[in-house]
Amino acid sequence: MPAVAELVRRARDGDPRAVARLISQIEDASPSLREVMALLAPHTGRAAVLGVTGSPGVGKSTTTSALVRAFRADGRRVGVLAVDPSSPFSGGALLGDRVRMQEHATDPGVYIRSMATRGHLGGVAWSTPQALRVLDAAGCDVVIVETVGVGQSEVEVAALADTTLVLLAPGMGDGIQAAKAGILEVGDVFVVNKADRDGADEVVRDLRSTIRLAERAPGDWREPIVKTVAVRGEGMADVVEAVDKHRAWMERSGELARRRGRRARDEIEAIAVTALRRRFGDLHGDARLDVLAEKVLTGEIDPYAAADDIIEAL
Amino acid sequence: MPAVAELVRRARDGDPRAVARLISQIEDASPSLREVMALLAPHTGRAAVLGVTGSPGVGKSTTTSALVRAFRADGRRVGVLAVDPSSPFSGGALLGDRVRMQEHATDPGVYIRSMATRGHLGGVAWSTPQALRVLDAAGCDVVIVETVGVGQSEVEVAALADTTLVLLAPGMGDGIQAAKAGILEVGDVFVVNKADRDGADEVVRDLRSTIRLAERAPGDWREPIVKTVAVRGEGMADVVEAVDKHRAWMERSGELARRRGRRARDEIEAIAVTALRRRFGDLHGDARLDVLAEKVLTGEIDPYAAADDIIEAL
Repeated sequence: MPAVAELVRRARDGDPRAVARLISQIEDASPSLREVMALLAPHTGRAAVLGVTGSPGVGKSTTTSALVRAFRADGRRVGVLAVDPSSPFSGGALLGDRVRMQEHATDPGVYIRSMATRGHLGGVAWSTPQALRVLDAAGCDVVIVETVGVGQSEVEVAALADTTLVLLAPGMGDGIQAAKAGILEVGDVFVVNKADRDGADEVVRDLRSTIRLAERAPGDWREPIVKTVAVRGEGMADVVEAVDKHRAWMERSGELARRRGRRARDEIEAIAVTALRRRFGDLHGDARLDVLAEKVLTGEIDPYAAADDIIEAL
Repeated sequence: MPAVAELVRRARDGDPRAVARLISQIEDASPSLREVMALLAPHTGRAAVLGVTGSPGVGKSTTTSALVRAFRADGRRVGVLAVDPSSPFSGGALLGDRVRMQEHATDPGVYIRSMATRGHLGGVAWSTPQALRVLDAAGCDVVIVETVGVGQSEVEVAALADTTLVLLAPGMGDGIQAAKAGILEVGDVFVVNKADRDGADEVVRDLRSTIRLAERAPGDWREPIVKTVAVRGEGMADVVEAVDKHRAWMERSGELARRRGRRARDEIEAIAVTALRRRFGDLHGDARLDVLAEKVLTGEIDPYAAADDIIEAL
């Protein structure tokens, strides 16, 4: 087991095994993360972070894979982080869908990593930004963050991205479903995938009229809608172009600095809250929380009074 | 605006408007909640909490409505809490699907309430248990907690229930999707809805073999699989029977006390964490967090060092 400094050095040199080890340390909430992040800090902030979100079945994996191909054709180094925030049960991420990414497995300019975020330990907000730092410091020009499975917090993942792609597809009742989940509000670029199928133009039309309803000032970003057939790579150059335009606008308008500032504040807060939660965890050990829970259950005290007691004890 | 004590008294008498007001106070994170919860504490702990979860399109709303009918036929008072944890944008809950519940709107033995949990203020773990307390104290025998829309944390909602129903339906690729989200692991009773459609028996078979893989000791609960056609009310009596059996097992085995203990601990922790987060929020005001975020962005310090500083400041 190499020392932390050595591991970080190797990751910065682009050694994929060193990158993988550092991300495993994040999954395991290793005590050495503190040192890792301190060593990485001066080498971060360069990568563009791209969120990919959408309901199951719209073709997220296929689109991500096609996007990787498009960025690679342009000579950019790409990291892919497939986040699975939904299962607190699994220690490793579910790799079922990841087979589509195998075409990139031997490309040294691509890192692909699934990550289980284990809901309970600070979750997505705690682990994903740290994994982004690792990929960023390892020299990725673009990092794509994609959520896996249903039931995940798309909105939370979108909050980590510089640019969020929201994917839709015809024939899934997506107009309504997406609106429900609030994911339309987080989209910077909309992708209507499976555009060769019946109903694609309707999805575009619905989307366009929904977008038009949002108020915008002059100079505000207007979300483009790009049609793709990701499985055949069609439209991916248009997606890359839209992403680059969005990034240019973000830099020009100051929005990039604003989003990244918010992200840094959220990250600091998530780490602080997790540290405090760990202290709560320690309280389980000394049975104080159990005693309070019992009193709440019997109606002797209310949960606010119990929380006061806990905060006191920290 | 009646005083808090008066509002609580009315809610305990079963006044639906008082119940609605108290739940609105939870949505708004009203400062008076503290007093509300203190007044409610001695009158809680009686209601059975039933979680209803499953992918979009399996018929959650229809099943919930049919279940309400079945419980009412048995003379039980029912509360329904439709939780929408996915949208941090909306102040009120989305009521689109709720039209199916309208048959119960005039029944004084049924409370129906949609609740937006506004992701950022402690979320589901903070707000839902408090709303459960209100419905519990208002005399509900059963409270059904149902999640609305996609992208929600089914697992988180299941953690609040005494008994969790996991719904599946044929023709949705649900076997795989459900397994991805980890929702099979949280099911106490499985419901295969739309059982009159092609493929229902296959879903039952897939489910049965998945369940069989889980290890169980003698005396452990074995999750039943119930076939329903909720839209016609078929199979609902079987669901109620399965739920009651599960509850009896929970009481007998001590699992009910264990789950409720865990729930009370989670609730106390969620309230404590939210209180601490509010203090973080206050730090935004004094610009300390902004300064730290800027230093993290420029790589001057790492987020752990920033978090230490924040904890210090609390």
